[in-house]
Amino acid sequence: MSGRLILKRFAELCGGASARICVIPTASQLADTGQRYTDVFRSLGVRQIDVLPYQGRPDTERLDWLETLGEATGIFLTGGSQLRLSTILGGTPVASLIRRLNARGVHVAGTSAGAAFVSEHMIAFGKEGATPIAGQVTLAPGLGLSNRVIVDQHFRERDRIGRLMTALAYNPFAVGLGLDEDTAAFINRDNVVEVVGSGGLTILDVSALEYSSMAQVDEGQPVQLVGVRLHVLSNGGTFDMDSRKAAPGPVGG
Amino acid sequence: MSGRLILKRFAELCGGASARICVIPTASQLADTGQRYTDVFRSLGVRQIDVLPYQGRPDTERLDWLETLGEATGIFLTGGSQLRLSTILGGTPVASLIRRLNARGVHVAGTSAGAAFVSEHMIAFGKEGATPIAGQVTLAPGLGLSNRVIVDQHFRERDRIGRLMTALAYNPFAVGLGLDEDTAAFINRDNVVEVVGSGGLTILDVSALEYSSMAQVDEGQPVQLVGVRLHVLSNGGTFDMDSRKAAPGPVGG
Repeated sequence: MSGRLILKRFAELCGGASARICVIPTASQLADTGQRYTDVFRSLGVRQIDVLPYQGRPDTERLDWLETLGEATGIFLTGGSQLRLSTILGGTPVASLIRRLNARGVHVAGTSAGAAFVSEHMIAFGKEGATPIAGQVTLAPGLGLSNRVIVDQHFRERDRIGRLMTALAYNPFAVGLGLDEDTAAFINRDNVVEVVGSGGLTILDVSALEYSSMAQVDEGQPVQLVGVRLHVLSNGGTFDMDSRKAAPGPVGG
Repeated sequence: MSGRLILKRFAELCGGASARICVIPTASQLADTGQRYTDVFRSLGVRQIDVLPYQGRPDTERLDWLETLGEATGIFLTGGSQLRLSTILGGTPVASLIRRLNARGVHVAGTSAGAAFVSEHMIAFGKEGATPIAGQVTLAPGLGLSNRVIVDQHFRERDRIGRLMTALAYNPFAVGLGLDEDTAAFINRDNVVEVVGSGGLTILDVSALEYSSMAQVDEGQPVQLVGVRLHVLSNGGTFDMDSRKAAPGPVGG
């Protein structure tokens, strides 16, 4: 279980002991989600942790919470439902402030639903299976920190490669990142993705795609794709989104 | 029929007689689509019109066509299927060049499928009806000239207000623009939308939305929305996307 290692790496990037981490538990409907992450970050040596429990759109106008958020060196979005994140935070001063902070270099992390939400195009929901089927996936606007990736999670555990391919088949623009559980993709400011964790990161690179049949098929029909490049990387592996070069991590590392 | 007036206005913005207009008929599967628009633009006094009939992803590498496109003062995307546009042009040098040209001030216009395609979040398809229903609409990544609008078309004719509301209910971030037939929305560099044509432009402004139930409902269930602002404008009407102020056009104008 390297979940703790992943959060430790995040906390260090945010400044370690002097980090100011805001936890946003909006995706979750459990009352103790914020407290659980506060405990973990505190045990990792972070002294300043604030939970901002946005539960509805009116909360997003609270100036005291916006002020706290504005001082964060790291923002952490918990799991739950990504549609709670998009329907409660989308188009509000909170979403806008997180985008501005991230553009200034503030680290934004998400787990599960939180990971799905960070990109411009978010997988809202879908059906499992190994191959792409028209209608298998529903996309919605996400937080918009990057339009270069579409993130899916619980990837191996819930058999989601078909739906990620379906998402990419609409418009072969983004890079597909499929995160296994207990596995993180750290994206640095040079657009290099690094894998940390005990599972795999599946990368679907459609930059050289020759053909997608998505415009011709009806709902429920298989989608044809020609020329997807696929990488599966584990701990220490990297993928450069500019050059599209993948490098594996150390074997057994 | 003011379709001709709309195209005239576009041609004038692009430089009138000295405009260089590229017509991209990729959405259409009819062989004469490019020629038809060439004839219309020629009859409006434009001397330089080039048709770039991208029919598959390999075409998007053609350097001679990229050169021609690079010299355009206006780019026109015809109707047909927006998924043909996104699957053939998405993630290619053509899409990238159009975005760069538009950022430099080159005008990009689309009709029907072409209009749906221009924004970052594109309505790929959906079902008709007056009220929002979960699952009624399928979004896909579009060309990405703006993430501030989601465009729907044939709006009154095909009864599409429900699906546009559904699209906005996922993440109340963008402005919904519903174009009736024979009606255009011109967006200038100050983010002001102006209506030209014989029909209506329906604007759905969700910037003050208080509630969306999209995270709670299952496919096929009605979606609850509280606080949508709706405007219907006709010829000469304007909407400022920064201030969110709408102004009607002249009555009978």
